Amino acid sequence: MKLVYTGKTKNVYELEDGNFLLQFKDDVTGVDGVFDPGANTVGLTLEGAGRAGLRLTKHFFEILKEKGIPTHYIDADIEKATMTVKPAEVFGKGLEVICRFRAVGSFLRRYGLYAEEGQALDAFVEVTLKDDDREDPPISEDALDMLGILSKDEYQVLKSLTQQIAHVVKDELAKKDIELYDIKFEFGRVGENKEIVLIDEISGGNMRAYKNGEYIEPLELEKLFL
Amino acid sequence: MKLVYTGKTKNVYELEDGNFLLQFKDDVTGVDGVFDPGANTVGLTLEGAGRAGLRLTKHFFEILKEKGIPTHYIDADIEKATMTVKPAEVFGKGLEVICRFRAVGSFLRRYGLYAEEGQALDAFVEVTLKDDDREDPPISEDALDMLGILSKDEYQVLKSLTQQIAHVVKDELAKKDIELYDIKFEFGRVGENKEIVLIDEISGGNMRAYKNGEYIEPLELEKLFL
Repeated sequence: MKLVYTGKTKNVYELEDGNFLLQFKDDVTGVDGVFDPGANTVGLTLEGAGRAGLRLTKHFFEILKEKGIPTHYIDADIEKATMTVKPAEVFGKGLEVICRFRAVGSFLRRYGLYAEEGQALDAFVEVTLKDDDREDPPISEDALDMLGILSKDEYQVLKSLTQQIAHVVKDELAKKDIELYDIKFEFGRVGENKEIVLIDEISGGNMRAYKNGEYIEPLELEKLFL
Repeated sequence: MKLVYTGKTKNVYELEDGNFLLQFKDDVTGVDGVFDPGANTVGLTLEGAGRAGLRLTKHFFEILKEKGIPTHYIDADIEKATMTVKPAEVFGKGLEVICRFRAVGSFLRRYGLYAEEGQALDAFVEVTLKDDDREDPPISEDALDMLGILSKDEYQVLKSLTQQIAHVVKDELAKKDIELYDIKFEFGRVGENKEIVLIDEISGGNMRAYKNGEYIEPLELEKLFL
């Protein structure tokens, strides 16, 4: 198998059958040793973070499969911290899709004139470009369409899937009295008919989760939840 | 009459009949003495800038009136550099609506991964919050609705008016071989039925205009155009 991409938190290998293998790393995003799911740099390395992320990802992706929500997931090997996935084409050079249930992080930094910290948001969806040099700028439906990144019809599918999946995760966490504040997804096009499916992962590193008003670190989330 | 607002480029007075008087100043936005319509600070003072801005504003607002496009304009006194307008309620704490025909300025700073400098854009509309402390963040239709700033129906009206007005200005400038790259508007609600109308001004200070590939300064634009 061939290494085709070295990411911040995982490496991607191409398999001989055309599928891909994601190797989860123990690195998590953040700044100066403090975890931040919105950060563009690796902030710290936590032993076991890769496996913990994969365990959560496997758990959620299998629930999504049962519910008929499309993802790139095929199977996972927790011991090796690897996940086998279908080949997917990303939108442009990559997008992140955020779903927010409470106003924190970059939402609050941008819209603090109108929103209070922690204010409830109704599964608000926004898209940002993956572009470290430009600090992942938010981008509108119109701009995505005009720049040829995502059509208007695809945007509606993306938004609907995002809200559905975010609600699944929120409801699952709620069973353990954990509250989901926000979560970040990646999507891609799979197969000949370019179906839009969830790709990448669903783990503590992609979300902000709280218990009794206290923020739960990614590794802690896996222990509390699984 | 009573001073009710001191802006960067104009002051606003309330008149006894309920209308408002805008006093155009000779200050223009920019940084370190260089004009920039996207800047949040007064960059320089140019003698005659107020009257030049008002002359252009009067010209365009009267064309819009003929075309039946609603604005807050009542009349203007060039000598005194004042314009009388209907009372309007702004959206939230104020929005700016930008229409872009070419990729320059903040659009390019944000989306430079996908757009080249000067690339043609199809009357692309985006909205930013007037919030100096947060550097006028762009905001989506969904966020405007969710934060109670502008309803989805109002957004569609705003977008349509923006494109119509931008095309009017573009076509007018084209008559003098001047090309409009982008333009920034403000809108408000007027009257009991909360009609959405163009407010503020249409002048060199709100747009980027080019002739033979060279940028035209705001004061120069008034001389070239009128």
